[in-house]
Amino acid sequence: MPRIVVDVMLKPEILDPQGKAIAHQLPGIGISDFSAVRQGKRFELFVDGEVTEAHLQAARRAGEELLSNPVIEDVVNVSVADDDAVEQA
Amino acid sequence: MPRIVVDVMLKPEILDPQGKAIAHQLPGIGISDFSAVRQGKRFELFVDGEVTEAHLQAARRAGEELLSNPVIEDVVNVSVADDDAVEQA
Repeated sequence: MPRIVVDVMLKPEILDPQGKAIAHQLPGIGISDFSAVRQGKRFELFVDGEVTEAHLQAARRAGEELLSNPVIEDVVNVSVADDDAVEQA
Repeated sequence: MPRIVVDVMLKPEILDPQGKAIAHQLPGIGISDFSAVRQGKRFELFVDGEVTEAHLQAARRAGEELLSNPVIEDVVNVSVADDDAVEQA
């Protein structure tokens, strides 16, 4: 089933303690390739039938009005998911 | 600064109460375009300098060993972030 992905991240100026905690854990599994880590949210919105521009606009509005806190978060991506491998509802 | 995005979602067979709660909220803001919603996690791993294949492999390993719970979650995407608009560390 087609899906629209909505990605939400903390605004760059907002401290991300979870991301910092993860960054500190990475060397513990032998990974020191990354200078920082930030964590956000990823939503998949399932569409019956074809994805239209109206679906994309509704997904952006859902992102801005329900899926994110506009005071501290940004909607950084609204796009049609690449694969429809996941058949799920 | 270049970033690698790692996306983690619940396995399709795992119930997603958060996603269901969001799906029930959407009509309340006048959005009824979507048949289901699932919520996952999005990580940005910041790279000093150029992103290499080794970075992508390290990001995938981080996804599988630290950023997800392999029992209930899948790493569904590991890719270089499109834009480097966000200058942040």
